[in-house]
Amino acid sequence: MFNTSEEIVSFKELINLLLKRNIKKRIAIVWPEEKHTQEAVILAVKKGFIDPILICSQSVANKFSTDNLFKCYVETDPIKAARKAVDLVRIGEAEAIMKGFVSTDILLKAILDKENGILPKETVMTHITVAEIPNYKRLLVFTDSAVIPFPTDKQREQQIKYVVEICHKFQIKEPKISLIHCSEKVDKRHFPYTEHYVILKEKCQKGEFGSCIIDGPLDLKTSCSLEALQYKLIKSPINGEANALIMPNIEAGNIFYKTITLFSKAETAAILQGPLVPIILTSRGDSITTKLNSLALATLISDKHGI
Amino acid sequence: MFNTSEEIVSFKELINLLLKRNIKKRIAIVWPEEKHTQEAVILAVKKGFIDPILICSQSVANKFSTDNLFKCYVETDPIKAARKAVDLVRIGEAEAIMKGFVSTDILLKAILDKENGILPKETVMTHITVAEIPNYKRLLVFTDSAVIPFPTDKQREQQIKYVVEICHKFQIKEPKISLIHCSEKVDKRHFPYTEHYVILKEKCQKGEFGSCIIDGPLDLKTSCSLEALQYKLIKSPINGEANALIMPNIEAGNIFYKTITLFSKAETAAILQGPLVPIILTSRGDSITTKLNSLALATLISDKHGI
Repeated sequence: MFNTSEEIVSFKELINLLLKRNIKKRIAIVWPEEKHTQEAVILAVKKGFIDPILICSQSVANKFSTDNLFKCYVETDPIKAARKAVDLVRIGEAEAIMKGFVSTDILLKAILDKENGILPKETVMTHITVAEIPNYKRLLVFTDSAVIPFPTDKQREQQIKYVVEICHKFQIKEPKISLIHCSEKVDKRHFPYTEHYVILKEKCQKGEFGSCIIDGPLDLKTSCSLEALQYKLIKSPINGEANALIMPNIEAGNIFYKTITLFSKAETAAILQGPLVPIILTSRGDSITTKLNSLALATLISDKHGI
Repeated sequence: MFNTSEEIVSFKELINLLLKRNIKKRIAIVWPEEKHTQEAVILAVKKGFIDPILICSQSVANKFSTDNLFKCYVETDPIKAARKAVDLVRIGEAEAIMKGFVSTDILLKAILDKENGILPKETVMTHITVAEIPNYKRLLVFTDSAVIPFPTDKQREQQIKYVVEICHKFQIKEPKISLIHCSEKVDKRHFPYTEHYVILKEKCQKGEFGSCIIDGPLDLKTSCSLEALQYKLIKSPINGEANALIMPNIEAGNIFYKTITLFSKAETAAILQGPLVPIILTSRGDSITTKLNSLALATLISDKHGI
């Protein structure tokens, strides 16, 4: 097996890793009726890390099916396209799903369907973003900015497991995971989850999450800046070099995501974890680059041959 | 009266406004035993918009009392210094308070003291930040990143009143105030406060908050970017030009504050509103510029002759 032991610190390196290792995944694109999705898919195909399966209208199929790099299934509407994508996952034909010009509700309905869906019982589904922020020297993985409003203890524990898995795929041997709060104090009365943070640290020390370092409560600055940590006279094994942030609630996760993309020129990729395969839930406003990055992330996560 | 009708869009303009209008306030500095606080105070004195009252140790008093621009009261410890500052507000000698090398707890204890404190009964105390973010064309006022964990309806209403007052002092005639949420949908079940957002908009339309525009729920991007608003095919009178953000909870407010200062090179100023006078709660890691900006903000807010 090809061996690269360097940590992946940018999306460019992520794509290069896929190419070096010849990792290529079959990704179902649900209703790719607009240009941004099509262009991102074309780019990923050209780079060579996806085999796309377009589930699309007849007219889009006419455009793409002449090229044998694109497999097409014709459907008459987005609802049927979403169901078809889920079916392709169930029979093993698709290894990830990307949302095109279809509402998130429609796609989620097909994924969550109790009879024909692809979310195993008792499985936590959560949204994970990976960000490349100028002036931060590593990729920053965080959850959840879009799905779980106020994570329960169980959900938070599962979020950590997903995040550790992604960091390991980025070849980070001992990822540093910060449990985010507005301060560094445990405050059972106002913020019960900070008490759970202590339990999570203990579980980490017992090895329950595999190879990783967990600390918290820490705020964004003490998580991501050694200088800020030292100013506050705090010591933390994260050392201002967090690889991942577990957010206290969706409002914090969402505003973090929106702020780094609007005001810090961050590039991002995002997927849903929990279903049988990674789901790319892009949104209308996402750039082609974001969609390409998300395709690369889904391809890496979908790869079972590990680091 | 000096008339300038231009909106204040930067801290430089804020300080210039104070100087143009000869606004100068007596500010009690609680235990200014470290350099950053001293330097910020000296700068503000040189610029000419504060009359400082240092409540300090004998050695600091020895250093400053030779200069008659600095009034000094000697105390033996930070607890007494905090009480003294509050007393000076009660007798009308101090028009704002700035925290020096004293813990927030100690200062708040003196402010909140039921017998001798300066927070009127039933008054909501909340933390307000003003940010100057590169590439955003106006100052952005937001609350609350430090005091109220999960605002009640009543607290949120009072936050709006404080924020409107500050925006008016910035000479913004009809400030645009966005009620922040992770999406633009009212969701009573998961996020009861989004239902209250609707009521707040109605109250605004009835004129209960004075001259301002309120809209929400909106996320950070649809609040602050017209492009993002248009991508989502949403219309809002805020038009991507929010002057102020009311945060859903302290975690969102705190991570927004930390992110813009760590990753977006934002300059900030922050005060507590609610007590009889503005309180500057700087923190150890704050730059001299942040402390100077906060002194300027407190001076403006403390001025009763404003617009």
